[in-house]
Amino acid sequence: MITIDTIGQAYARLRGKHVLTPLLEYEHINDLVGGRVLFKAENLQRTGSFKFRGAYNKIASLDDRQRARGVVTFSSGNHAQGVAAAAKSFNIPATAVMPDDAPVLKIQNTRRLGAQVILYDRRTGDRRAIAENITQETGAIMVPPFDDEMVIAGQGTIGIEITEQLEAVRAPADILLCPAGGGGLIAGVSTATRALTPTLDVYCVEPEEFDDTCRSLKRGERVANEPGRTSICDAIVTQMPGELTFQINHANLSGGFAVSDQQVGSAVNELFEMTKLVVEPGGAVGFAALRSGALALNGRTAVVILSGGNVDLVQFRKNFDMEMRN
Amino acid sequence: MITIDTIGQAYARLRGKHVLTPLLEYEHINDLVGGRVLFKAENLQRTGSFKFRGAYNKIASLDDRQRARGVVTFSSGNHAQGVAAAAKSFNIPATAVMPDDAPVLKIQNTRRLGAQVILYDRRTGDRRAIAENITQETGAIMVPPFDDEMVIAGQGTIGIEITEQLEAVRAPADILLCPAGGGGLIAGVSTATRALTPTLDVYCVEPEEFDDTCRSLKRGERVANEPGRTSICDAIVTQMPGELTFQINHANLSGGFAVSDQQVGSAVNELFEMTKLVVEPGGAVGFAALRSGALALNGRTAVVILSGGNVDLVQFRKNFDMEMRN
Repeated sequence: MITIDTIGQAYARLRGKHVLTPLLEYEHINDLVGGRVLFKAENLQRTGSFKFRGAYNKIASLDDRQRARGVVTFSSGNHAQGVAAAAKSFNIPATAVMPDDAPVLKIQNTRRLGAQVILYDRRTGDRRAIAENITQETGAIMVPPFDDEMVIAGQGTIGIEITEQLEAVRAPADILLCPAGGGGLIAGVSTATRALTPTLDVYCVEPEEFDDTCRSLKRGERVANEPGRTSICDAIVTQMPGELTFQINHANLSGGFAVSDQQVGSAVNELFEMTKLVVEPGGAVGFAALRSGALALNGRTAVVILSGGNVDLVQFRKNFDMEMRN
Repeated sequence: MITIDTIGQAYARLRGKHVLTPLLEYEHINDLVGGRVLFKAENLQRTGSFKFRGAYNKIASLDDRQRARGVVTFSSGNHAQGVAAAAKSFNIPATAVMPDDAPVLKIQNTRRLGAQVILYDRRTGDRRAIAENITQETGAIMVPPFDDEMVIAGQGTIGIEITEQLEAVRAPADILLCPAGGGGLIAGVSTATRALTPTLDVYCVEPEEFDDTCRSLKRGERVANEPGRTSICDAIVTQMPGELTFQINHANLSGGFAVSDQQVGSAVNELFEMTKLVVEPGGAVGFAALRSGALALNGRTAVVILSGGNVDLVQFRKNFDMEMRN
């Protein structure tokens, strides 16, 4: 069970290890969207995304003997970096199974953090099977990207911080917009805010072709995305909601929004100029939902989680050029 | 006189009005430079640079009758935005005299914040004379960009915050690297840190062709830059140190470093990928000094002030392309 207590325990483990990322506000953006927007800047987290929180909590919760066996994970990139950094801080080995088309920056950073990276072909390989094979061969412990209680509880610490930060600036928020891939981040955050700020409506935001959580919420059961689709939001192109995460999100969320690649690209560029933050496409979907008019604030206050910033200059420039052509 | 007390008064005025910007650390950067680096992210300040602090403190310290007359300033862009935002929060009129080749983003933002912008030709006009003329015609109060006790005291609040933030992370710092244009920021910050953290060595960093403060420190008197030079660091291309700022900096600083446009361009790009922060060229000179080897840390701890982030996408892309060609 993931409760505010297990999230509180995760928060105690993380203190002094992670970055208490700021909650930032920009008058000009408030004027533009007709409400108040508070950005939780998780792109400034260790390894450039929220993923460090869940990975660290999982590894910290293992006993010494388990931990000594090392860890293994599968990830498109951000979770791999989070696991690598957390493993490094415990001085244990880590292996990450990553698609061979993952952003170069993410593969490089995972290696630089000391993890062994195993690349696979996204069209033919099964990343989970490859990772599970490694756990059987080496005895290493699996740190799944989302469908795990300790991982979800770690991501949920963002919900505690947001609540504390909203109190500090005396800003009661109405809405929280959070990216969803496998749904671990929003499952943890919504569990925390339901306990601490029950009036807050939590919505997921996803790429148009990968709106599995949105559609699953409507159907009341897990549905997968059409195969073969693409999106610039590499961090959140999961095929289907997790079992555990969907169960939580089904109970907690008020709904969801889908945004197009073009809306996301435009949001990344606007965030660059208006917030002075580098946000990767998958991290910018919440702001894209506000700017595209998918959700109108009408004077209300929204917290927008900017979940990561791992976009390299070449990828960023490509996005900029695409935007210029439109 | 600018003292820790007048800076403390400025801090009391600013509380709740400004952003308490984070002090950020990145393991990978520590490894790269062979020491510990803590970035004071003033690019996340209101209006995208530290300038809001000094402008707000100046305007807040006026009495109601003075303030009602409105304010006027001259600035290449960041100070103009700071004055415009501060004036807006007091609901008084502001006029900014800006060069006609200032970055478009800075002119747009100053106007958007409600200030009247008067453009002049940098080669033929005298911005101070134009601004002083306006004060005589309209009775508006001048908010100078650096040579003013209240402006310097406002910028100095960064020194108080840095001291508190270093204590919170238990990181005694050895060195502080701070950009210098007219020298107001570093004059205020060094006055605060001399009082609160006297062991900290404060160094200015400037563009190679605009190292007037560096050379003035060595000569013991104010010297000007050669006319007709250019730099990508538009925020800090002042012709000569201020009278008041130089007097303070001469007493407080341990020295200074100069960096080339190429080193700055490279620093801007590295900061994008490594810190997830958008930093304008003039704000990136401190990191450029570390990365170029102008200063070797040898295991010491440095605070680097990232003073602003007002670079637009077109300018950023130009910098990126220049870098790619090298």
